[in-house]
Amino acid sequence: MRITEIRVTPVAFPDPPLLNAMGVHEPWALRSVVEVVTDEGLTGLGESYGDLSHLERLRGAAQRLIGLEPHAHHVLYAAVAASIGSDVFVDQHGLTGAGSNQKTVDAVFSPFEVACLDIRGKAAGLRVADLLGGPVRDAVPYSAYLFYKWAGHPGAPEDRFGAALDPEGIVAQARWMTETYGFGSLKLKGGVLPPDQEIEAVHALRDAFPGLPLRIDPNAAWTTATSVRVGKALDGVLEYLEDPTPDIGPMAEVAAAVPMPLATNMCVVTHAHLPPALARRAIGVLLIDHHYWGGLLRSSQVAALCDTFGLPLSMHSNSHLGISLAAMTHLAAATPNLTHACDTHTPWQDGQDVIAPGALRFVDGAVPVPEGPGLGVELDPDALARMHEQYLACGLTRRDDTAYMRRHHPDFTPKRAHW
Amino acid sequence: MRITEIRVTPVAFPDPPLLNAMGVHEPWALRSVVEVVTDEGLTGLGESYGDLSHLERLRGAAQRLIGLEPHAHHVLYAAVAASIGSDVFVDQHGLTGAGSNQKTVDAVFSPFEVACLDIRGKAAGLRVADLLGGPVRDAVPYSAYLFYKWAGHPGAPEDRFGAALDPEGIVAQARWMTETYGFGSLKLKGGVLPPDQEIEAVHALRDAFPGLPLRIDPNAAWTTATSVRVGKALDGVLEYLEDPTPDIGPMAEVAAAVPMPLATNMCVVTHAHLPPALARRAIGVLLIDHHYWGGLLRSSQVAALCDTFGLPLSMHSNSHLGISLAAMTHLAAATPNLTHACDTHTPWQDGQDVIAPGALRFVDGAVPVPEGPGLGVELDPDALARMHEQYLACGLTRRDDTAYMRRHHPDFTPKRAHW
Repeated sequence: MRITEIRVTPVAFPDPPLLNAMGVHEPWALRSVVEVVTDEGLTGLGESYGDLSHLERLRGAAQRLIGLEPHAHHVLYAAVAASIGSDVFVDQHGLTGAGSNQKTVDAVFSPFEVACLDIRGKAAGLRVADLLGGPVRDAVPYSAYLFYKWAGHPGAPEDRFGAALDPEGIVAQARWMTETYGFGSLKLKGGVLPPDQEIEAVHALRDAFPGLPLRIDPNAAWTTATSVRVGKALDGVLEYLEDPTPDIGPMAEVAAAVPMPLATNMCVVTHAHLPPALARRAIGVLLIDHHYWGGLLRSSQVAALCDTFGLPLSMHSNSHLGISLAAMTHLAAATPNLTHACDTHTPWQDGQDVIAPGALRFVDGAVPVPEGPGLGVELDPDALARMHEQYLACGLTRRDDTAYMRRHHPDFTPKRAHW
Repeated sequence: MRITEIRVTPVAFPDPPLLNAMGVHEPWALRSVVEVVTDEGLTGLGESYGDLSHLERLRGAAQRLIGLEPHAHHVLYAAVAASIGSDVFVDQHGLTGAGSNQKTVDAVFSPFEVACLDIRGKAAGLRVADLLGGPVRDAVPYSAYLFYKWAGHPGAPEDRFGAALDPEGIVAQARWMTETYGFGSLKLKGGVLPPDQEIEAVHALRDAFPGLPLRIDPNAAWTTATSVRVGKALDGVLEYLEDPTPDIGPMAEVAAAVPMPLATNMCVVTHAHLPPALARRAIGVLLIDHHYWGGLLRSSQVAALCDTFGLPLSMHSNSHLGISLAAMTHLAAATPNLTHACDTHTPWQDGQDVIAPGALRFVDGAVPVPEGPGLGVELDPDALARMHEQYLACGLTRRDDTAYMRRHHPDFTPKRAHW
């Protein structure tokens, strides 16, 4: 079986004004949809970032993959690496750590690898999870992903989610989200308000949801000293503390001083970070993300490495669509040491998707592994066309939360080790 | 697809009197042949050790696998782990390091996993190498595995390989082996004669084969001081120095003092050994062996871990038959950082096999990846029956090189950190 054609289609979908340490989500979230077609008539799906420079790299890599075999993982990876050369992609939002050549190769390879696994599953009549070692859980628990947010985008009417700018707003948001989706864990995106206000919000969540595991993720907005202070203040309250401060060294200092494990999707985001982070015991939980760890097989190899070092996993999420949710679910289902509920932005996606409805659903906060073959989801061509039109019309070509925030608050400072 | 039947058949084949630090190979080598049968009529093959206690563990585990799915890697592994409980297998020869519960589970799981990959390949029309990421090399280079040996077993006539008890004998053996198989690397099993005599043999190989990478493996027969002395004496001569001395701590001391990388299949033989060995920089090359690293997928995960830490691989071998050679070849072909020629005992097997001839051959010292599907080899039922009869007739139920040596040399001492 050979790859005969690859289509890379940028799409956009409305995104609410979710606040984070780097700024605020723009009115449109950008993604790319990858379709890999073979000479046997099978098509596989992948999903990735939508920034223009990333799209160009995807298209450059796609040309090198024509004629190759969807099973030839290593050969496909080498072809993508060759297309990237020494190039380094640095995203504007900085929310998934520093850029590097390795991370760039892995991010470009990812959607093609997912699409090839989709093809391989379809060819063999198997689910992608079966190709990754088989599910160890029938449904993958996800966490409610709570954000401070404005009532609506500036100049637009209030959106259906409403404002959340204080503990009461966060608790109300959590109540809506748990009631709608059944989530059994709560994650608060922090780094937005001064730390004491965010501590207060976490305590409010603890009071309102006494049984649920809680996390806060300030995206490295805090200094080492503040991280330690917050960690101690939330002793017995947090399941884990995610990326309180930047970089492996300071994270190791915090980890040694606080009572709960530290988690990261910022200081360990590529293979080169694993040896020093493990040597310095900087983290207790790795948030894996197949979008920048080189796809599903490479992510499951990282999970096996973490298991050797006694590290459990959780899963990171950016704004995404259903192809990614399916891929995340297959990976998480087949990863024994992924024992924390995964992050997902699905509730903020507000029903828009490029896939045909029905394959993915939340039951008690968990997504049942789609029944195969492959990813178990199918593209809705009309939706893809409509969301591509939205991409063309929205005028955005890259995510830049800071620039958007500064358009409305010119004195805004991104919060890196700020408080 | 479900597993409906598993057959575990012990076999024996003649083995020459190969010398090592623990004693000498007995007249018969023992192996087990595993056949996994599914409800779709597919049969997969695996091969493992033949010691009686291991056979009993294989049979106990096999019962737990009936009714399970050949793709459900994690579920199959958990079933084997449950059948082993807290049991620990300690082999008598000690040549692959210490026993542990994890290593026992991995060793019992291995032949079933290989057989399931064979089935999965057959079901999908793919080679096992394709299921492991696809081949990165069309043929896998193997190394000549040179042994000091007696002319024949005591009381038996001289075997066709003849004696090798000095540098001339080793060079003659190497010449025969390279001329017959085309090997491009030479490994000398050491730990048999005092170190200076083995240094002399390595120099004789260097003089006789100036272009070929050389290795020596004394199976931890040397002290730290001797290891450092030998390492320095062979500066510029060895590709790597394998297991000069026991345990991670002493290996790390030697590694810091000698000019070549150290390799191991003794001090790092299970997942728990990897973190301390990496932290202490004890080794520069890991000799992977799917027979005790839990099969092919788990071995390829260990390879990915090693790649993250910048460690290349080679491959360990015990006496084996063609099912194992096929599995080793598929794994090595699909492992990018397996950049050293693999070990194999194939020449000592002297043509006896349980598989039908034709699928495996050496071309210029390398085995071309068998054309699928699955492992690409088929059982020869008559050969299996004959070799099973040999097992029943030979009277051996476990490998014990030391006891056999002592029968002929009652004062023999196993050489652990001896010289």
